[in-house]
Amino acid sequence: MSIRPIEFDRGVLRMLDQRLLPNQEVWLEYRDYREVAEAIRTMVVRGAPAIGVAAALGAALGALQMTAEDFASFSEEFEEVCAVLGATRPTAVNLFWALDRMRRIVAAHGDEPLAQIRQRLLDEALAIAAEDEQINRTLGAWGAPLIADGSRVLTHCNAGALATGGYGTALGVVRAAVEAGKQIMVYADETRPFLQGSRLTAWELQRDGIPVTLICDNMAGALMSQGLIDCVIVGADRIAANGDVANKIGTYTVAVLAREHNLPFYVAAPTSTIDPNIPHGGLIPIEERETREVTHCGDVAVAPEGVAVRNPAFDVTPARLVSAIITERGVARADYPAALAALLKKER
Amino acid sequence: MSIRPIEFDRGVLRMLDQRLLPNQEVWLEYRDYREVAEAIRTMVVRGAPAIGVAAALGAALGALQMTAEDFASFSEEFEEVCAVLGATRPTAVNLFWALDRMRRIVAAHGDEPLAQIRQRLLDEALAIAAEDEQINRTLGAWGAPLIADGSRVLTHCNAGALATGGYGTALGVVRAAVEAGKQIMVYADETRPFLQGSRLTAWELQRDGIPVTLICDNMAGALMSQGLIDCVIVGADRIAANGDVANKIGTYTVAVLAREHNLPFYVAAPTSTIDPNIPHGGLIPIEERETREVTHCGDVAVAPEGVAVRNPAFDVTPARLVSAIITERGVARADYPAALAALLKKER
Repeated sequence: MSIRPIEFDRGVLRMLDQRLLPNQEVWLEYRDYREVAEAIRTMVVRGAPAIGVAAALGAALGALQMTAEDFASFSEEFEEVCAVLGATRPTAVNLFWALDRMRRIVAAHGDEPLAQIRQRLLDEALAIAAEDEQINRTLGAWGAPLIADGSRVLTHCNAGALATGGYGTALGVVRAAVEAGKQIMVYADETRPFLQGSRLTAWELQRDGIPVTLICDNMAGALMSQGLIDCVIVGADRIAANGDVANKIGTYTVAVLAREHNLPFYVAAPTSTIDPNIPHGGLIPIEERETREVTHCGDVAVAPEGVAVRNPAFDVTPARLVSAIITERGVARADYPAALAALLKKER
Repeated sequence: MSIRPIEFDRGVLRMLDQRLLPNQEVWLEYRDYREVAEAIRTMVVRGAPAIGVAAALGAALGALQMTAEDFASFSEEFEEVCAVLGATRPTAVNLFWALDRMRRIVAAHGDEPLAQIRQRLLDEALAIAAEDEQINRTLGAWGAPLIADGSRVLTHCNAGALATGGYGTALGVVRAAVEAGKQIMVYADETRPFLQGSRLTAWELQRDGIPVTLICDNMAGALMSQGLIDCVIVGADRIAANGDVANKIGTYTVAVLAREHNLPFYVAAPTSTIDPNIPHGGLIPIEERETREVTHCGDVAVAPEGVAVRNPAFDVTPARLVSAIITERGVARADYPAALAALLKKER
């Protein structure tokens, strides 16, 4: 049973503080949507699907907090709640997708008592959370056949249970392959600067008994050149209509290396990560985070004071480098514009 | 005036402890060759040319320590000194090259008093140190014309003054270009796990007033895809006869990325880094270092306890990805076997 990083019980949102893993397992409690927004911004919770779940539950909390007594005020205040939650991280589209689902609940039920709308919002957020794990299990079932028995699979960042409502996207495919009886070994890129690979991916795979070997990001190329890696699977923060994939910084480099070594490069993500309104990856907003993530390790400086730093949190992998995009509605391959549009049209 | 990381004065070898940079500038003193060997092994000093200089001076210290009273014993004990110094790090060929130069002094002067041989060994070691900085200045002059005015140059690891007797190889080329009046900006890969880029390259360039921007290793690809990098220049730990280059882990990935983006990929190294006895890179011994470099940052664990780790310290970039090899005797380009052999035959 893989871990679920987000829980909700009797008006309290609980999230595993992913900044403290693997050394401490601390659960934080939230009753205020503004604190949820801050938790998303500071990466207590991260990973596109998990951000969507947290934002939806944060919006539900916001609705419970609101003091509006008529629908017009309620609707206006709820817009403000969504704006605060939406202003936390720009790249992961699941954030906006989840908030849009919440907004549609309000828009569709303006004739109901406010207490009932609040309950509907909470139900919707809980549904988003519950669906997410089921989506990942279905996605895993689609993806597992792509991973051959005995594979040594490279992954970057954490697209695991911790990045989702549960089970994981990229690691969901790995889990599904393992559950199908295959021997799988995972190489985890440590994923600087936030170290999601060493702190989170290694931790959750070790916890589930799936063999994992940790490497620095700059070692993947050498291992590929030695024939030690069979395929790559990563998650996504936003997929453009043409199949370009925004994901954790370094993903593009891994994709270039995979192509150089003729290895399949798979992206695993729910269809909620596909953004049909963005024609190509060049238009996806890329978050630049604070320099301290790069210049410090904990409280210790690892760079001279005042040095200039770039810290883009994501990069864009062009569709031409993507072997397949694995979703809960099936596997898309080039031609991506048509394949992704077809998946989005499919009934859930 | 760029820094010199190794000094020798009145029987004492002093080395800047590069493990403590950029937070502390601590100079350690050595009077015992065994301690010098340990300093090389633990990376108080690192960088192929600097390792060669330190080993030569360590061997000279060893000769001063020896109590042998006849040449046969002296020669035997000196072999042991060289064996201890040579067993520290396997990849950088400059270590063995420098020790061979020292051994040849002993072999050539067996008819002289031991005190005179000791003095010759010290003179030879000091010559290796002094030559190294001059070699880098000459190498820089050869390389500077390859770097266009206004270039944004990516480097990996530290092939700077700190990695050499002074001035640097890759950074020597940058310094020579700057001294020629060119506007140069350097992107420094932080270079996990030992962070030579953030701790050393950023520090020494900042100290010299050369603009430097620090990035994580996994960001270089994204910057290249955005047109923000014009060329790559790195050092080398050993160059095979066919032009394959062993250098700090991650160099191969940078070379693949440079080729993908049609950027020149330059290697700067003294001819002492060329190993004519190694036909191709696959035969270069690659050091695997302790896992703790990857799992910890200082004393803080960043990975779960007991996780499997790979930590190769170097990788091999095939000659086909190398645009040119810049040495103190000129610039080699493909066909490398012939070009490198010609450089090795040139008079110094």
